Amino acid sequence: MHHAMQRSRLLRVPFALALICLLAGAVSPAAWPAPKVRRVSIIVTGGVVVTVDADRRILSPGAIAIDGKTIVAVDRPEIIAASFRAAETLDASGTVVMPGLVNTHTHAPMVMYRGLADDLALMDWLQKYIFPAEAKTVSPEFVRTGAGLAALEMIGSGTTTYADMYYFEEEIARVTRKAGLRGVLGETIIGFPSPDAKTPSEGLARNEAFIKEFIRDELITPAVGPHSMYTLDREGLQSSRRLADRYEVPLLIHVAETRDEMKTSRERHHMTPFAYLDSIGFLGPRVVAAHAVWVGDDEIPSLVRTSTGISHNPESNMKLASGTAPVPKFLSAGLAVGLGTDGAASNNDLDMFEAMRQAAFLHKLQSGDPTVVGAASAVEMATIGGARVLGLEKVIGSLEPGKRADLILVSMTGARQTPMYNPVSHLVYVSKGPDVRTTIVNGRVLMRNRRMLSLDEAAVLAEARKMAERVRRAVR
Amino acid sequence: MHHAMQRSRLLRVPFALALICLLAGAVSPAAWPAPKVRRVSIIVTGGVVVTVDADRRILSPGAIAIDGKTIVAVDRPEIIAASFRAAETLDASGTVVMPGLVNTHTHAPMVMYRGLADDLALMDWLQKYIFPAEAKTVSPEFVRTGAGLAALEMIGSGTTTYADMYYFEEEIARVTRKAGLRGVLGETIIGFPSPDAKTPSEGLARNEAFIKEFIRDELITPAVGPHSMYTLDREGLQSSRRLADRYEVPLLIHVAETRDEMKTSRERHHMTPFAYLDSIGFLGPRVVAAHAVWVGDDEIPSLVRTSTGISHNPESNMKLASGTAPVPKFLSAGLAVGLGTDGAASNNDLDMFEAMRQAAFLHKLQSGDPTVVGAASAVEMATIGGARVLGLEKVIGSLEPGKRADLILVSMTGARQTPMYNPVSHLVYVSKGPDVRTTIVNGRVLMRNRRMLSLDEAAVLAEARKMAERVRRAVR
Repeated sequence: MHHAMQRSRLLRVPFALALICLLAGAVSPAAWPAPKVRRVSIIVTGGVVVTVDADRRILSPGAIAIDGKTIVAVDRPEIIAASFRAAETLDASGTVVMPGLVNTHTHAPMVMYRGLADDLALMDWLQKYIFPAEAKTVSPEFVRTGAGLAALEMIGSGTTTYADMYYFEEEIARVTRKAGLRGVLGETIIGFPSPDAKTPSEGLARNEAFIKEFIRDELITPAVGPHSMYTLDREGLQSSRRLADRYEVPLLIHVAETRDEMKTSRERHHMTPFAYLDSIGFLGPRVVAAHAVWVGDDEIPSLVRTSTGISHNPESNMKLASGTAPVPKFLSAGLAVGLGTDGAASNNDLDMFEAMRQAAFLHKLQSGDPTVVGAASAVEMATIGGARVLGLEKVIGSLEPGKRADLILVSMTGARQTPMYNPVSHLVYVSKGPDVRTTIVNGRVLMRNRRMLSLDEAAVLAEARKMAERVRRAVR
Repeated sequence: MHHAMQRSRLLRVPFALALICLLAGAVSPAAWPAPKVRRVSIIVTGGVVVTVDADRRILSPGAIAIDGKTIVAVDRPEIIAASFRAAETLDASGTVVMPGLVNTHTHAPMVMYRGLADDLALMDWLQKYIFPAEAKTVSPEFVRTGAGLAALEMIGSGTTTYADMYYFEEEIARVTRKAGLRGVLGETIIGFPSPDAKTPSEGLARNEAFIKEFIRDELITPAVGPHSMYTLDREGLQSSRRLADRYEVPLLIHVAETRDEMKTSRERHHMTPFAYLDSIGFLGPRVVAAHAVWVGDDEIPSLVRTSTGISHNPESNMKLASGTAPVPKFLSAGLAVGLGTDGAASNNDLDMFEAMRQAAFLHKLQSGDPTVVGAASAVEMATIGGARVLGLEKVIGSLEPGKRADLILVSMTGARQTPMYNPVSHLVYVSKGPDVRTTIVNGRVLMRNRRMLSLDEAAVLAEARKMAERVRRAVR
């Protein structure tokens, strides 16, 4: 950056001369001194660029110049070609280039439990499968293996930033950094003994150590992860809030997911989950409330007042029969709404294209109105909306000069994508994770033409298959 | 088959001798006469075989011997290897082998309109986009191009049989035959001038000529395609029924799709759409009723009595906000229920894996019960259920000796499918069309390791892109 700035100052004199010559008609434009080109690290050129910027600009075709971690220009290919020279040029023809997808709620290592048990009542599923499996298998090694597997899947399906709540979150952070993904990661704080902490206060201490270790990291935003209002008491929730305030980090929490939670909250507090959290001063702009299914119209003003962020998880809410979050109302109220996949034990994958399509489908069905949650709205929730929920809207979520270079190339050349009248429609209604060809995070190419560059794919898969044997034994 | 039976009779004597020798301890098993191996065309071996037979057998690993058009054996790999020698052996390791998917409702050439307009009220969508586009673009050439594009997508995503209603259906039949797919194809009969017939009676005449041309075809089942009870009068519907009866072919029709149809039916006939069709003697075992969203509990007995088949289209019903078909009730009543994608103008793809996942998700959500429409049920609807709806359950829909060899190999080796605890769960909750590696129909390999063999993929795509220009101009 310093070099570039110095260069632009040096260039002022010749440019001024050229301008004077032109105004005087002394020379033809062809005789101008060629504009000096700026050296950058990567140019992505030739695709349809869906920027999701404030004007929702779409360049067809477009190009992007990236220098180091940062997007320096988004423009027509010929303009980028004339202004920049890149160490690496990626041909994006036949693809849509869009901001990397932001998954606002998951539990990455739970990919190790995907498909372990499905189609069960929630309590059977938890008590016969998930809790026994977690009790017997969750360890630092397990979490590393699962996070690596999840990272492969996320890179391979276009997720560039993810918000996570699990145990041994420091292990997840290390894997995330190695994989090159951006993460908003919170240690789970829960009111009963967990794999990494016997008590909520031990969990909070671990969480604080975690925050200190990663607070200056380029890719990791450490967060606090109080599990929910029904698994923590008032003290646990308020301590979590204080910890998040002290370090100015996000608070990740499940809220109003199920009818049972609603019932529990009413019995214990004579209030809904959101009303209770508001009453104890928990809500605020740093809160990422996952699910928010059971929310009355009269509760939305308090979410607006506190600037609480919403993570909508349509697939998990459908598969677990939790219910339908009032997303069209959240959007009308101007709340920050992002999309999430939830953990792969309850989805069963981490594909944000499915989350986009499901959000569009679900709310059309529930409202009886096919105009609700259109394709553009689904793309916004999966990109800039998610960034806003995580407090990263100035850093990621759109393709604009000055933002970090988190972007993906989505193939549009197959039979399923032919013809293409509208790229935004195709991103939501026909694209799938495996269509992502190339994934770039923070200016680093993590996957090129579906080849993983930051992780050893075969080794990660082999480790995961080995670890799966332990899971099988745990639920036998 | 005759040869095999004779051989087994001839083999009785040596086998009896061998048994006596073994019992007497006279010879070791190694000294038995080697059993004669049968020559077959294809062996698929090494994958997890999900048969969807009456016992819902899963062989892990398993193998399948195919001779000509027919499955001759499904067994353990070592047994198949000992009994058969094949001209071609397909290594299925790392995949799940399952019956080809049966799409019970689509309008194949409408892939040419995919993504042309979305997120609109139904009448805006039809009147501003679909009807003008159809009026200006549908021709034999258009239909050929669209059917070829759809065939590429279906082969590429594991559909081996599809039921179709459109115009110039004879063109679709020829493309389907060339592509090697199995089709149940009906000319659309509709009460206003259509691209291929000015009146319903002209449509019926075309339909009869079409039936005569294809009734003995190995892959094509010609059908009658009366559009709906709201676009045809009593005479049109009853003539369609008579035509189908005369040739003993299926009747494809849209029924009870939208609230508007319900309203129209009540206004005109003081009855629901299904009650009206029943009252005029239209319903019966040959009927494939697409959608069946607006069906009261009290109407189900008449569907059972008439053995009416149901094509459930969850994605289209969600995207167009049509409503939720009472599928769990249909299944409890023992009705034949298959899945469909509907046309790609309203979905926007032909991926039956999405239809399976959506059926499972949708009915869990709507019933508030996560045990409803489990993965096994979704797979059954997409295979044997669909075959039953189309009257083909003795021919296709499961992997069993004597049935036609329609099967697909679905990759399970990626991060998204790792680990695999339960193959049926993975088929529904994590698989996507592009995971299909190999597609076989009627014993012919149509796609091997994602390479299209029956169609020139590049040429079909190029034609479709050219044809799309006409569509663009039509709605400009």
